Amino acid sequence: MDLLKEGERIDDLEYKGLKIIQNKEGFCFGIDSVLISDYAKKIKKNSTIVDLGTGTGIISILLSKKQENLKIYGIEIQKDVAEMAERSVKLNGLEDSIKIINDNLKNLENHFSINSIDAIVTNPPYKKNNTGLKSDDYRNLVSRHEIECTLEDIINVSKKVLKDKGELYMINRVERLVDITYLLRKNKIEPKEIRFVHSKENEPPTLVLIRAVKNAGEFLKIEKPLIIYDNEGNYTEEILEIYNKKK
Amino acid sequence: MDLLKEGERIDDLEYKGLKIIQNKEGFCFGIDSVLISDYAKKIKKNSTIVDLGTGTGIISILLSKKQENLKIYGIEIQKDVAEMAERSVKLNGLEDSIKIINDNLKNLENHFSINSIDAIVTNPPYKKNNTGLKSDDYRNLVSRHEIECTLEDIINVSKKVLKDKGELYMINRVERLVDITYLLRKNKIEPKEIRFVHSKENEPPTLVLIRAVKNAGEFLKIEKPLIIYDNEGNYTEEILEIYNKKK
Repeated sequence: MDLLKEGERIDDLEYKGLKIIQNKEGFCFGIDSVLISDYAKKIKKNSTIVDLGTGTGIISILLSKKQENLKIYGIEIQKDVAEMAERSVKLNGLEDSIKIINDNLKNLENHFSINSIDAIVTNPPYKKNNTGLKSDDYRNLVSRHEIECTLEDIINVSKKVLKDKGELYMINRVERLVDITYLLRKNKIEPKEIRFVHSKENEPPTLVLIRAVKNAGEFLKIEKPLIIYDNEGNYTEEILEIYNKKK
Repeated sequence: MDLLKEGERIDDLEYKGLKIIQNKEGFCFGIDSVLISDYAKKIKKNSTIVDLGTGTGIISILLSKKQENLKIYGIEIQKDVAEMAERSVKLNGLEDSIKIINDNLKNLENHFSINSIDAIVTNPPYKKNNTGLKSDDYRNLVSRHEIECTLEDIINVSKKVLKDKGELYMINRVERLVDITYLLRKNKIEPKEIRFVHSKENEPPTLVLIRAVKNAGEFLKIEKPLIIYDNEGNYTEEILEIYNKKK
């Protein structure tokens, strides 16, 4: 298997020596994947984790260095994307920690037992299939719109495979907040912590990070805002720290 | 009827000449009532509004000056508190705009027709009845804990009396966010706008302002944070403006 196919490039993640293969024409990871990988570092060591809709594998790869001895399964529906993620896992020598599975996440039960997983991490498609301008490229479409799976599919399968008190970590756009909290509670995966991500202080938040726990009690904590840029347009100290570039 | 009873005092609201009667031993209004009255100023003129659990009447009284020609009904379960609110209405000469009703809000249907109300405004008890230290005074208890009515009661009665596309404005503590959004969507009063209230910038929010619309589509907007104090501990410009004290 060649390391790179036509149209692909290797990007240095500038984090603990990690690299990733991306397709220049396809969906390239953004700060959202970096933020959810860091937010999920609360996961306990030795956990078994499923990364739903792993795409390039970015979340699985970053997460593998955030906590000790994780066993991570990245599910990706698109064959060529899954195969590219697998090459990125090899490129980083992470074959013992990360396994890429090429399947629709709705079939999760075919791969894992009921009540067997410690945590689910996901950066799902943000947009409902009937909303917004659609991207031309099918890979972009599937990554951004609920074409192959909806929020409800994700929460339904999570409910099944998560252990009692197993955790779900998700990042999404703030306009989906009610959709997410409604479906989580309905499925007894209780939202316990929420953190809003603001581009700048005093601007409306654009993204939301959520930690929910299967069969947990009903009490929500909202954390302090996560601010990306300071007033001069530079990354804040916290973002530099997440990127491991602290001054 | 005497204007003041034993233990009561008149407080100047320092807003358009308004005053309010409060009982020194009872529940006195806080910034939350001031914030929800201001948040609800989006209500259209000539609207018919119900203030659920009006207490001292603070929200009804402030709201009457935020928009033209409102007809406001304040519901209060506690007889002595409702009677005190009525005296505050008279003190301000607002008898034509505000009517206080002494009843349990669960009986709202006895006072209003189904699908007849333009907007509901409420600052409900924040705490579940089984949580937190309980205050000694029964008036405080009823105002702070879900003794006489729960969030579910409030949303159930709102659903019935609100018109199609009628609005619900609520302030609550952030830990109730999931409870609120879950019950609202379940009852087809869709949360459309949310604004978090932070004591200071970069601190976690403590309160949440919500505008929900009966039978509206599913799309949420989160507004920019509402910050109460600046870094010197003084009210921010926006709070001064809400209190009508802009420098």
